[in-house]
Parts: sequence; structure tokens; C-alpha cells
Amino acid sequence: MQYERVEQDYFIYIEKNEKVMHSLTQFCIDNKIQNGKVSGIGAVKETEIGAYDTLEKIYIRKEAPGVLELISFEGNITLKDSQPFVHAHVVLSNHDMNTLGGHLFETTVAAVGEFFLRKFEGKAFRKLNEDVGLPCICLDNKFSMQ
Amino acid sequence: MQYERVEQDYFIYIEKNEKVMHSLTQFCIDNKIQNGKVSGIGAVKETEIGAYDTLEKIYIRKEAPGVLELISFEGNITLKDSQPFVHAHVVLSNHDMNTLGGHLFETTVAAVGEFFLRKFEGKAFRKLNEDVGLPCICLDNKFSMQ
Amino acid sequence: MQYERVEQDYFIYIEKNEKVMHSLTQFCIDNKIQNGKVSGIGAVKETEIGAYDTLEKIYIRKEAPGVLELISFEGNITLKDSQPFVHAHVVLSNHDMNTLGGHLFETTVAAVGEFFLRKFEGKAFRKLNEDVGLPCICLDNKFSMQ
Repeated sequence: MQYERVEQDYFIYIEKNEKVMHSLTQFCIDNKIQNGKVSGIGAVKETEIGAYDTLEKIYIRKEAPGVLELISFEGNITLKDSQPFVHAHVVLSNHDMNTLGGHLFETTVAAVGEFFLRKFEGKAFRKLNEDVGLPCICLDNKFSMQ
Repeated sequence: MQYERVEQDYFIYIEKNEKVMHSLTQFCIDNKIQNGKVSGIGAVKETEIGAYDTLEKIYIRKEAPGVLELISFEGNITLKDSQPFVHAHVVLSNHDMNTLGGHLFETTVAAVGEFFLRKFEGKAFRKLNEDVGLPCICLDNKFSMQ
Repeated sequence: MQYERVEQDYFIYIEKNEKVMHSLTQFCIDNKIQNGKVSGIGAVKETEIGAYDTLEKIYIRKEAPGVLELISFEGNITLKDSQPFVHAHVVLSNHDMNTLGGHLFETTVAAVGEFFLRKFEGKAFRKLNEDVGLPCICLDNKFSMQ
């Protein structure tokens, strides 16, 4: 993994055979990035994605086989149990340009992994929301619609 | 809806059963955000998406049924009739990880709605372009290719 | 093409019948943008996308016919042979809201093209990586996992 930082912006390159979620999480821990936004593109393999079943309150998991283009990666960083936690959703495509996608559990770079991370100097954290069944983001201010 | 602001960056959490487009638009109005970029992920329901028919100059509309992962939300904020207007496109996925997408009319958070908005201190606005058939963005400077 | 700049953020509008990759590349050259992140939405036509075959080390190319919604465009700018180079992946959808996607070779605006570019004041460049078979991003710092 390589990176370059300019103020709160990080250009990140995850190399072939490196795991994306593991690398980004470790990078945030080591660089004290507690909150942020991360997006990127690349080509990946050994991908596990999922969808949240709001009734059963469990994640349905599925392996996405083969080498796939990572055509959209959008995620955020918050604190969960006081540690940086990356939550990301992806869109993937195969050699026929067909797409699939979902919540990203893990994927490994097959060719290139090109990301931008913007650090957010906040204190957003996750706490279990029993109604949703997931650790949900808690932020400083409430906004109510009239 | 909750939010946290650091300078021009807003971390936004739209809660279960809140409408995404309505909430973001109202947030921009109340916070005097006239221009910006907004992106995010989540899990949604009661979704209406569309595609613009460039020949008929109308939007084809379609309901995307059930609870879906919001795997990409990319949008911008401009002024339309002097009010903040959110234009967004989405990619959605179901429990089989199959995807669909288009122009977003409205969707409601089914589990979580996690967004970043970056305010742009410009004066971009929309004006009807009769050739296109839509209110199109007008910006300060023209760029011409040699 | 129109644009508005506020510090390192550029709001870019690519007009009907203008080519997206060619316009963005020329814009970066003329505005001395060597590194950056660019994302956007729109409606496009005459689109050529692809997927990288990691075994054969060639791009598979495919035309995506007709007018399509550009529902996600995510890319970056680096120097390649000392010139700004735009690398982007897209997700597209048709009038049935079905999606396809991949590496973007070129596409032309069919209705609107709405982009945000954030300049990154770095010196990221691409150099042929023989193992991958592509010009890969080189950044200043190495990050190694413990």
C-alpha cells in the first residue's frame, strides 16, 4: 500500500494481493483517522458482499466469484468500540459488463486499487440501535423537519 | 436526521423512515447550502427511480420494490427557481446482489442512510435548456477545447 | 463545457455532444491539474466501456448502445508520461433501470454531464508495472501492515 497526504486528503493505492477493507482499516488506525469518507475504483478478486435483511436483522452474504472491476466503492469511517471502522458499499462488473453489488465484507486487489480518503475532524461513532439491529452512526446535532 | 459539520464538510445521518431527497433538500434550505456535492450509502425502501427520454423529453418513472441496499448515491446541489435543488443518481441492489439504478425521485431509509455533503461556495443555478428539455446547470466560466 | 472554481474544488458541466474523457483531460491539461478526484452523474451516449483481463493483460472492450443514464462516474487524475491522465469507472442504466458498467474509455453527453473535481496538490504518477501489465500509480509513502 502506498499513500500521499495533502492536508485532510489522502490518495491511497492498494497493491495487488492486498485486502481492501483490512488495509483501509489498519491505515485509519495507524494514521489516527477516526472519521472520514473514502471512495475508489480498481480491479478485485475474492470478494464477499452482502445485503442487510431488515426483518431477520442479519446480513445475507454472497461470494462474488472471479476477477471483477470495482466500478464504485463508497464508504465512511466512524468509531466503533473506540476503533476506526470502515463501512463501504460497492458496485462490481464482470467481463460482460454485467454488474452486481452490495455491502462489502472484504475484497482483494487483483490488479489495482485506487482510493481517495478525506479525513473528517469529527467524533462520529456507532452505537447499537436495537430497532435497526445494527451499530448506527451518532452525530452531534439533530435536524428536524418542520 | 443527525449531522455534524466541519467547515464545508457535513456528515449526515438520515434515520429510518425519513425520506432522503426531501430531508437533504430541507437541510440545504435551512442551512443555506446553495451549491454542493453529496454522496452516500445505506439501505432504503419505497424507491422511485427514472431515466430521461431524450427524444420525448420526459422522465420514464419506475418503482423499485422492497428493501434495497443503496450502493451508490451521487448528487449535486444547485439553485433552481432560487431554491436549493438536489439532483441525484443511485445504484441499488437486492438480496441476490443484483443491481438496478437511475435518476432518483425519492426513497425512504429502511435501515440506515449515511451521507457526506461538501458545500461549494459558488452560485451555480439551473435554467431551462430547450434543446435538452431540462433545467440545466449554468456556471461562471466557459471552457473551449482547442 | 462550463466550470466554476472555489479553491481546489471545481464544479464542471459538460454539455450535450461533448466527449467526457476528452473534455476532462483537456481541462486538466489547460488548468494544470496534475492530480485529483473526479465524480459525477448525467445522461450519455456513444459509450465504450471495458474490463481488464488480468491473465491476458489486455482490456476487453464493449460498446454500450443508446442513451444511458450515467449513474456513477468515479475517477482520478495522475500524471502519465508527464501529462494529466484521467482514469474512471462508470455505472450506467437504461430505460428499464437495468445497469451495466466498467472501465470508461469514452462517452459523449446525451443530455447533461454534471461533475465535481477536487484538485490534489500531489505528484502521483503512473509507471508501467510489469506484473500487473498496466501503468500503475506511484505515491510518496509506503504503508506496511504489521
